[in-house]
Formats: sequence, C-alpha cells, structure tokens
Amino acid sequence: MTSEADPRFLRSREAILNAARELLLEGGPAAVTHVQVAGRAGVGRATVYRHWPRAELLLVEAMATVPMPFLDKPTVPTRAWLRLELTAIARQLDLDDVRAVSTTLANSALWDQNMDARRAQFADILANRLAGALDDAQARGEITLTLTSRDAAAMAIGPIYYRSTIERAPTDPSLIEAAIAALGTWSTDQ
Amino acid sequence: MTSEADPRFLRSREAILNAARELLLEGGPAAVTHVQVAGRAGVGRATVYRHWPRAELLLVEAMATVPMPFLDKPTVPTRAWLRLELTAIARQLDLDDVRAVSTTLANSALWDQNMDARRAQFADILANRLAGALDDAQARGEITLTLTSRDAAAMAIGPIYYRSTIERAPTDPSLIEAAIAALGTWSTDQ
Repeated sequence: MTSEADPRFLRSREAILNAARELLLEGGPAAVTHVQVAGRAGVGRATVYRHWPRAELLLVEAMATVPMPFLDKPTVPTRAWLRLELTAIARQLDLDDVRAVSTTLANSALWDQNMDARRAQFADILANRLAGALDDAQARGEITLTLTSRDAAAMAIGPIYYRSTIERAPTDPSLIEAAIAALGTWSTDQ
Repeated sequence: MTSEADPRFLRSREAILNAARELLLEGGPAAVTHVQVAGRAGVGRATVYRHWPRAELLLVEAMATVPMPFLDKPTVPTRAWLRLELTAIARQLDLDDVRAVSTTLANSALWDQNMDARRAQFADILANRLAGALDDAQARGEITLTLTSRDAAAMAIGPIYYRSTIERAPTDPSLIEAAIAALGTWSTDQ
C-alpha cells in the first residue's frame, strides 16, 4: 500500500499503536477494539480498519512495542551474568506493561495464530540464549548441567514467571539463587 | 432471588455454564458474551443478563467448573508424593481446558477483581498445601529446605507452568526431578 509511506499515516500509525497499548494496559486485550483505538488516537475508524482489518493484529503489533526481557549478551562468569539477567527479568515482570504483554501472549496464543507465533518466538529466543550461555559455561568447566541446556529456561525463568503472574508478588533473591543452583553443579561460588 | 431455586432455572443454569465453558475453550475469554452464551445454551438473552449482569461473572463461574490441580492429601514420604503430584499437574496443564483456565486467570486478574480473587485463592491453596507438606517433611528429617516453604510453590510449579503456557511443550520427568531437588537437601533417594 502506498499509504504506508505517507508521512501523515506514519504519524497516525504511532498514535494508533500508542492508543492500543494504553487500552491494553487499562482494560486488557478485550478493550483493544477498532472503535476505542480510533477514539483514543483521534483518527477515523476507517483508517484503523484499513490498516488492521482484525483488532488482534493491532494488538499483536502494539504489544511488540513493549520492551520484553531477553537474556541479552552473555558475559563470563555465566553464574554472575545469570544472576543479573534473572534479577532484571524479575524486575521487568513487576512492571504492569510487561506482565500484561506476557500473560496476554500466553492466553491469546491458545486461540490466535499470530499471538502463538509471537509466543513461540519469545520462548525460543529465551531458551536458545540461555542454552548457548550454559553450553559455553559447561565447555569452560564452570558448570556441570543437571538438565539439558534446552530445559534450563523453564527451570530458571519458570519460578520468576509463576511468582509474578500467578502469585502476583515480587521475586526475592533467594528464589533466583535457588533457580540458578538447580541448573547444575557450579564449580565456583561467584 | 427466588428464581435461583426454580428447577427450570437450575437446568438453564447448567446449560448456560456449559455453553460459557465451551465458548471459552473454542474462542478465548472474549468469546464469552451474553449473546453467544444464550444462543449456545438455547435460552433467552434476558435470562443470561438477569443472572449474570456482567459477562465476566459468568466467565469466572464457568471457569470454576473446570477441575484444577490442587496438591491434595499429602502422603509420606513427601518426595514420592511430590513427584506424583507434580506429574499430575504437568499432565493436567497439557489439557486444553486447564491451560485455558489458568492463563485466563493470570491475564484477566490484571483487570478484573473477581478474577484476581480467584487467582489469589488458587495460588494460596497451592502454596499453603505445599508448605504444609514440606514443613512436615522437614520436621520428620526428610528434607532440609533451601527456600522458605512458602517460596517452594514457585520453585516446584513454576517450571511446569512456564513449560506448558510459554513454551507450550510437555514437561519431562527430568524437569520435575530438578524442581524437586531444588527445594532443599533430601535425606533419601526415594
């Protein structure tokens, strides 16, 4: 569509995605409707319908504007990196927008293919990055893994995710230490 | 309301709750509307509106008809009981209805007080039952806990919950063993 490159549409696009994200945070995924988004963004409904024929597509795109925790850039020693990264994930999961996006992904993915693709992508990135860092740590002799490195994401992130989304409480350092210890036998106390 | 005791309403009530549960499983929480539920249950819309003025209340009640995993009736040794119970939770989380209810609870609780009350109740029951069993195991000398017994639910159930709802894959026995081992130092290999 040529209109995608239209500078007026680019401004509207940003307003529409911001409105959709705000509505998600205020009222949940069901609040992200064409009518409400158009009203909040101050654009015509036709514009929203034309670019996002289904409200779910708009929701997926608006959710992608929330920065999610991703276990970026492993450093050595792996144990110290993991402690910092899991602490960062726990803090991010205390934020309303990250909690809204992650639970909406897990829920909507059961019925919406686009959401499911985002969920799978998110899970794969976390699992692969963690596996990469742990395989490297094992090769360096820093850890002898108890689980396969692909199983480590559920063991390391699962307790924090459950604490945040089911128990709705902050993660204390002791839970993070226990999750790290559960990955295998660490050769250092770093 | 006297109509609550009306046998005709009791039959309608069951049909309405079944319809709401089916709609949730087929299309997610947004599919549970007064109009769709009335159509599916074969009752008048007015009946649904009268008894459940808000669709969210109907959804909460319909979700309560799905049997959820609850760590019931601890037996000794605790480690063997825990292995059986966590395996049962993992199998239940493989079921579409349990996955739908648990992710809908975690998501909707962010915006709906009734859902949040159910979420809190669910989390508390699991945490208290597990804490009771682990405190007893520690008193008997079966385990020296690494975490407080209240932290154990996130450590034991979190990995299975993440595996099921974010990674959407079955939980293997090795993940359950690692979660059990992470709770503390067990005195036996049972």
